[in-house]
Amino acid sequence: MSDRDATDVDRVVVALDVGGTGMKCALVRPDGVAVRTERHPTDAARGPQAVIGTILDVALGLADKARADGLTPVAVGIAVPGVVDEARGVAVWSANVGFRDVPLRDLAVSRLGLPTALGHDVRVGGLAEARLGAGRGAGHVLFVAIGTGIAAAHVVDGVAAVGAHGAAGEIGHIMVRPDGPRCGCGRPGCLEAVASASAIGRRYAELAGGSTDGAVTAAEVAERAAVGEPLAGRVWQEAVEALADGLASGQALFDVATIVLGGGLAQAGGLLLNPLRAALHERMTFHREPRLVAAALGDEAGCLGAALLALDAMGVRDHQERR
Amino acid sequence: MSDRDATDVDRVVVALDVGGTGMKCALVRPDGVAVRTERHPTDAARGPQAVIGTILDVALGLADKARADGLTPVAVGIAVPGVVDEARGVAVWSANVGFRDVPLRDLAVSRLGLPTALGHDVRVGGLAEARLGAGRGAGHVLFVAIGTGIAAAHVVDGVAAVGAHGAAGEIGHIMVRPDGPRCGCGRPGCLEAVASASAIGRRYAELAGGSTDGAVTAAEVAERAAVGEPLAGRVWQEAVEALADGLASGQALFDVATIVLGGGLAQAGGLLLNPLRAALHERMTFHREPRLVAAALGDEAGCLGAALLALDAMGVRDHQERR
Repeated sequence: MSDRDATDVDRVVVALDVGGTGMKCALVRPDGVAVRTERHPTDAARGPQAVIGTILDVALGLADKARADGLTPVAVGIAVPGVVDEARGVAVWSANVGFRDVPLRDLAVSRLGLPTALGHDVRVGGLAEARLGAGRGAGHVLFVAIGTGIAAAHVVDGVAAVGAHGAAGEIGHIMVRPDGPRCGCGRPGCLEAVASASAIGRRYAELAGGSTDGAVTAAEVAERAAVGEPLAGRVWQEAVEALADGLASGQALFDVATIVLGGGLAQAGGLLLNPLRAALHERMTFHREPRLVAAALGDEAGCLGAALLALDAMGVRDHQERR
Repeated sequence: MSDRDATDVDRVVVALDVGGTGMKCALVRPDGVAVRTERHPTDAARGPQAVIGTILDVALGLADKARADGLTPVAVGIAVPGVVDEARGVAVWSANVGFRDVPLRDLAVSRLGLPTALGHDVRVGGLAEARLGAGRGAGHVLFVAIGTGIAAAHVVDGVAAVGAHGAAGEIGHIMVRPDGPRCGCGRPGCLEAVASASAIGRRYAELAGGSTDGAVTAAEVAERAAVGEPLAGRVWQEAVEALADGLASGQALFDVATIVLGGGLAQAGGLLLNPLRAALHERMTFHREPRLVAAALGDEAGCLGAALLALDAMGVRDHQERR
């Protein structure tokens, strides 16, 4: 390094976490601290070309703001949902932003002139939770995001498993109830079809029939269960049992030290964690029981993880905790 | 290296695969070729101390034979079943040989004066199949051994996942039938309780009631199903469907390129592979469909894998295929 190179203090990564409705964006230092955060609408209805344009505009804008603040943008990290081929930097398939084989990494490199890493939203979220958040120090972490869907990231020594085709971690599609409701993927009884936030809301509405006015969210089901409403209690416990089955199967395969729960449903806190810990404990026979904890980084995890991925790709990893 | 050091041609690893009834033993060259093989009874009924004594005697004997043949034993690799802490070299828990926290690696180092690696039988079997056998060239491999029990090894770029406590890969204990038979581990509906060779034999006997004389093996169930016996056909198909559920869940989590089936049940060949491929295909929705193939190394896989693990620990890996 020459004397004129940027020091750690002023180097930042331009990081974007692209979701179906909004993009969380940040300038992140090598030590994992976000020095500026922004949010922008994705507005996916405009079509994939428009979304790609927004992503590149926002990234360029952030890089410019970094320079204006005397910082040096050294890389770009972008997280998208769906199937992501991290090695080739291609968004293979992202239903909720309409991407199909978009070479997002190369597009960003061309536009910004900076090394860019493309990652999967849940996998980079897991990366951030494992290295900077609730899994810090655990070495072997399973991060499970429970929201509209359910997906996971298996992180060992600070590296998230990607799979042969960028599709690893789909814990929402392990089969837990052979006679259960059909999943969006087409198969019956997937964990996601039984225990995602949307599945819980649906199940409550189905059992309540006409006796509830309007949609009830999973969070409301949790609250109603907590104050003793029998129907809510039944629906919540069904979901907890299914989640425990899924996590126990995951633990049998992965043998992690810590399971970190993220996503919207994890915001139920103890209403979810306490019964889930008990149900998981009941299922641990030969297994070593993992710690089960709530995510610590909130909805910034994806953005921080995208930055970590970009730094990893550049070989800059000294400043974060590895295990 | 000095001129007097052994060349690749005469270096060998002393490799042992210790099972409940027998030990498969070999001298293995760095290129993965076994130049001498031996079998010895384990005779586990004598107790763990006696088994440990036999392991060390057999290993020492093989090292001496190597030297007598002008070969240079450079390391020892030992595979055992159960829970194995590879990092510490400890057989944590091996029910069928009676081991409980046996520091087998250090015992072998003391007795033989050679660097020693301790591995898990299925994980090293998977290592060998992934690098030298049916998974060669695939990069991401799931090796599934189906016999009395069911266990797996997830091998990425020639390295088998061990887990935080040496217990990764227990695919036999993912839950596939909530209302299914109780597993040896104490939980209902584990894959192993429904689709292992022993479970298939049990299920057939149960449904046949008094109409079958004596025990029917899973292999016989497969053959009877193939010639059109309805009961055998039903039992076989039930097992195939459960296996397909388990493999599909594994694929959702791991996203491998190739699934290699080993163990006794895989010897049914096309009688297992053909219906299982069809049932797995049916379950692949968003997943990339893995190749499903039979293991290629037979019951030598564990022994070869133990040798690979020992070579890996020494940093000798140039001579085998990585991916």
